[in-house]
Amino acid sequence: MAELVRVWAPAASRVELVLDGAGSRAMRAEPEGWWCVCVEDRVTDYGFLVDGAGPFPDPRSRWQPKGVHGLSRRFDPEHYQWQHDAWTGRRVAGAIIYELHIGTFTPDGTLDSAADKLDHLVALGVDFVELLPVNAFNGTHNWGYDGVLWYAVHDGYGGPAAYQRFVDACHGRGIGVVQDVVYNHLGPSGNYLPKFGPYLNEDAGNPWGQSVNLDGPGSDEVRRYIIDNALMWLRDYRVDALRLDAVHALTDSRATHLLEELAVETEALSASVQRPLTLIAESDLNDPRLITPIEAGGFGLDAQWSDDFHHAVHVALTGETSGYYADFEPLSALKKVLERGFFHDGSYSSFRGRHHGRPIDTERMPTWRLVVNSQNHDQIGNRAAGDRLSSILDDAQLAIAAALTILGPFTPMLFMGEEWGASTPWQFFTSHPEVDLAEATAAGRIAEFARMGWDPDAVPDPQDPATFERSILQWDELSEPRHADLLEFYRELIQLRHRFDEFTDPRFDSTTVELGDQDQWLVMRRGAASIVVNLSADTLEVAAPRGQLQLCWPDNGSVTRVSSTAVRMPGHSIAVLTPSERTPQ
Amino acid sequence: MAELVRVWAPAASRVELVLDGAGSRAMRAEPEGWWCVCVEDRVTDYGFLVDGAGPFPDPRSRWQPKGVHGLSRRFDPEHYQWQHDAWTGRRVAGAIIYELHIGTFTPDGTLDSAADKLDHLVALGVDFVELLPVNAFNGTHNWGYDGVLWYAVHDGYGGPAAYQRFVDACHGRGIGVVQDVVYNHLGPSGNYLPKFGPYLNEDAGNPWGQSVNLDGPGSDEVRRYIIDNALMWLRDYRVDALRLDAVHALTDSRATHLLEELAVETEALSASVQRPLTLIAESDLNDPRLITPIEAGGFGLDAQWSDDFHHAVHVALTGETSGYYADFEPLSALKKVLERGFFHDGSYSSFRGRHHGRPIDTERMPTWRLVVNSQNHDQIGNRAAGDRLSSILDDAQLAIAAALTILGPFTPMLFMGEEWGASTPWQFFTSHPEVDLAEATAAGRIAEFARMGWDPDAVPDPQDPATFERSILQWDELSEPRHADLLEFYRELIQLRHRFDEFTDPRFDSTTVELGDQDQWLVMRRGAASIVVNLSADTLEVAAPRGQLQLCWPDNGSVTRVSSTAVRMPGHSIAVLTPSERTPQ
Repeated sequence: MAELVRVWAPAASRVELVLDGAGSRAMRAEPEGWWCVCVEDRVTDYGFLVDGAGPFPDPRSRWQPKGVHGLSRRFDPEHYQWQHDAWTGRRVAGAIIYELHIGTFTPDGTLDSAADKLDHLVALGVDFVELLPVNAFNGTHNWGYDGVLWYAVHDGYGGPAAYQRFVDACHGRGIGVVQDVVYNHLGPSGNYLPKFGPYLNEDAGNPWGQSVNLDGPGSDEVRRYIIDNALMWLRDYRVDALRLDAVHALTDSRATHLLEELAVETEALSASVQRPLTLIAESDLNDPRLITPIEAGGFGLDAQWSDDFHHAVHVALTGETSGYYADFEPLSALKKVLERGFFHDGSYSSFRGRHHGRPIDTERMPTWRLVVNSQNHDQIGNRAAGDRLSSILDDAQLAIAAALTILGPFTPMLFMGEEWGASTPWQFFTSHPEVDLAEATAAGRIAEFARMGWDPDAVPDPQDPATFERSILQWDELSEPRHADLLEFYRELIQLRHRFDEFTDPRFDSTTVELGDQDQWLVMRRGAASIVVNLSADTLEVAAPRGQLQLCWPDNGSVTRVSSTAVRMPGHSIAVLTPSERTPQ
Repeated sequence: MAELVRVWAPAASRVELVLDGAGSRAMRAEPEGWWCVCVEDRVTDYGFLVDGAGPFPDPRSRWQPKGVHGLSRRFDPEHYQWQHDAWTGRRVAGAIIYELHIGTFTPDGTLDSAADKLDHLVALGVDFVELLPVNAFNGTHNWGYDGVLWYAVHDGYGGPAAYQRFVDACHGRGIGVVQDVVYNHLGPSGNYLPKFGPYLNEDAGNPWGQSVNLDGPGSDEVRRYIIDNALMWLRDYRVDALRLDAVHALTDSRATHLLEELAVETEALSASVQRPLTLIAESDLNDPRLITPIEAGGFGLDAQWSDDFHHAVHVALTGETSGYYADFEPLSALKKVLERGFFHDGSYSSFRGRHHGRPIDTERMPTWRLVVNSQNHDQIGNRAAGDRLSSILDDAQLAIAAALTILGPFTPMLFMGEEWGASTPWQFFTSHPEVDLAEATAAGRIAEFARMGWDPDAVPDPQDPATFERSILQWDELSEPRHADLLEFYRELIQLRHRFDEFTDPRFDSTTVELGDQDQWLVMRRGAASIVVNLSADTLEVAAPRGQLQLCWPDNGSVTRVSSTAVRMPGHSIAVLTPSERTPQ
């Protein structure tokens, strides 16, 4: 039972395969920097010696049971018997995404224990789960963005076999899987890629590390490494979509951008596997080119995150105006976002000290290409104390945020626990085993917030295990009425979204927003439906169209129609009106 | 007669206007980092003190009569009385460009003396002259790419008034002016811009210096500085086109690239002044997006240089295959270039160690958008000894290069003196007054070629005045028959190009190329016309279509038709055939 082992090491003059407990084998040089050897026995744990140094793990390792510094273990994804082979995929148009972090979603922090919570997600009504990066990183727990072996599934989550079971279980419940993948940098420990080849761009960096070599000598194979990785998730693990981390940090001067190349290859795989496959970028560029079809001069991605929605909602509800929130102060910012997608569409960004972005062609672009949220891992976790909206706002304000997100024109994404106003924070946590790195990480975090005026004692130590444990969802709080009520409201919002076509209408011009005096209220019209919001603490009469009151917060009696053109709204309230002639199906 | 003086210095807490011999005046802070003062008397020489340091020249200085470290002199472009006000401009489509360097075009090295040579250019038949950068630089002579005051015209060339006279004289003779402008870096001496504001990108550089800040804080005004400069040449000096140096070194992550912004503003100015205004990029990207209309997702530039043509012709004639010439070895490279524009259209570039470029949409793109040459300032001057093709090839081979360039499908550009096979080299010369910089420049140049195996003694010292003087054209050699004959051949090629529409047909599919066995010959068909080339040293019979022999090299008797389908061509020869039924107009 011979196995062929290959590795790319273009500058090496000698490469050996090391087999755990079975010595090493010289590898044969092949064209274009590849090395190859055929092994008679079954390979289990292995690594490579490059010019005598090592052994290093396989850059394309699927499994690192002994951590990122240890040997790699062979994993054959073909062995798994898929239970839900009939899964035909799911499109992001019209869908709702639920973002979760495997390590803190459940007390066990594994893929298998996450799968045990699928009943909750099915009852909630979400269409996709989106997993924070699961690739192999150094330590036992962290957010996942400092991965160093992009092809491996973190062993602490259960490794690659558990990943297959998780995706299969999701598909069995009608839920698609979005995998968050990071191609813009590598983590600070366990990155042995430079031992093998020119994976890094020596001349460019970003806030998280050196840039990846996308356009220098040897970059053809580095691009292949990235694209093969993306295709791996979609093909071998049957993932339905990828969320591409921070694409603005991909430094690529080539005439065909990596993202376009990836879109073309993903499209080809989609045709081959006969499932929709979706690419979603996280982008700070406010550049519609990313989500414009290739035929129209774009990069051909399906969707992108739009932070402007988050910022506009956050400022409208919290009144916070520091940092990048500054420009979003008047409620007209939220109106602009809801009607035109980007707030920064060429407008001045005081946070950046320059104009920023470009308008969306609202005549042509479907609204679902923007993925929005009122909370996500970054917006919560990058606050000094990792505090959620639920610790700042009252429940009615949480309900307003939910309604604007779920019944607004874009693709909504929830962050785990948001749906019940989880009391747990979601803090920045790391587990670097190296003392120096551990200390530098903690000191860096504290210094970052000290510069913004925070008391160092108010910033949790990322290396303290308690910081991680504090961030784990407490599912038992669902038995408390406050949390159960909010969860029920989220469920009803999602049901309304599915029931009325107005809420998934992809045309920008199906949404118009009216603002009240002094930004006290807003009405978001979605076709013939309306979401009426009282942002103020006072009872107000708000001009609102006719319509059937489908849902409101606070509970039903609180919002009353006072005339055919107005409703009375208590302070901090939200009401959903739909065409009165419409009978729910 | 009051004058308003303004300058941008956003970080300064105090800015003063210094008037030569008349003390200084405090300036008033205005919004967005501008400072302003109204001076009662006429301002002549002036500078600025920034927080007490200086005086520094005006970043927007039009004239530096005492060099780049000295005070600026006011220059009002409105004072000039244009003699050729009726000039309605010229489009680059169908045109021929002539590249020249003011300092070495004539012995005097001035704009006025260059204007004295316009008879020569009119007789040659070129449509545009293209001036190497004329902006203010440190020292008395250099190529012009190390400018530090982009708004000023180098005083040694005659300053801004002479520039207006030169453009006016060109227009009077029916010749348009292309100005080469550099926006990707600043020269190593005399750059006081950082004293005023965040003009430079601290995080990025290119081979020539720090990058310009196009997307960081404060970059709105830096972009304005560039765009206003471009518009200055086009409006105040009535330049017809700009050649944008090395646009691949513009580091711009914004959703609207600087080049697109510039294209939009140039288009607006064109509508206002009612003249065609043209933007031509020098680009190493082989990216059709640059010259794709904005409506189709491009940057909307009019044209770009394409080095692939140069490399393919150079290799076909010289056999040199070192460095970036390596991939162009077989004659099929030239065929591909002539038929499809880019050789590197996604193909592997061994010089870059990666795949490079993207195909042109040959169904839609007009061929004239590529500006090509068989010699230019870079391709000559960046050789160790600055040797022209005329020192390597025989005259017939020069004639072949000329015919492929002038009668090929693209926009031809000649380099001054090429048309008579000038015997003078065009070497890398500098005149840094600072000893350290002078020594570093010379040592760097010699070391660069030593790495490629050159004897240091064979590399001219760029600081040696003889290197500069050696590069000045010797017009008297035009009296020698060898040079006069080649010049006459160039004239006739250009006349043919103007006489037969085939040669300016902008459709890619109007050009097809046939290659002979062992790459000995090629026939470039341009519609019903043909250019037949024998690249070998042997007499050959070449399959050639019917047609009238319009022009050949060597002289007329040497090329003979042996049958209705073949011509006999002596070694190293070129013949131009046009439809025989066509009567020259």
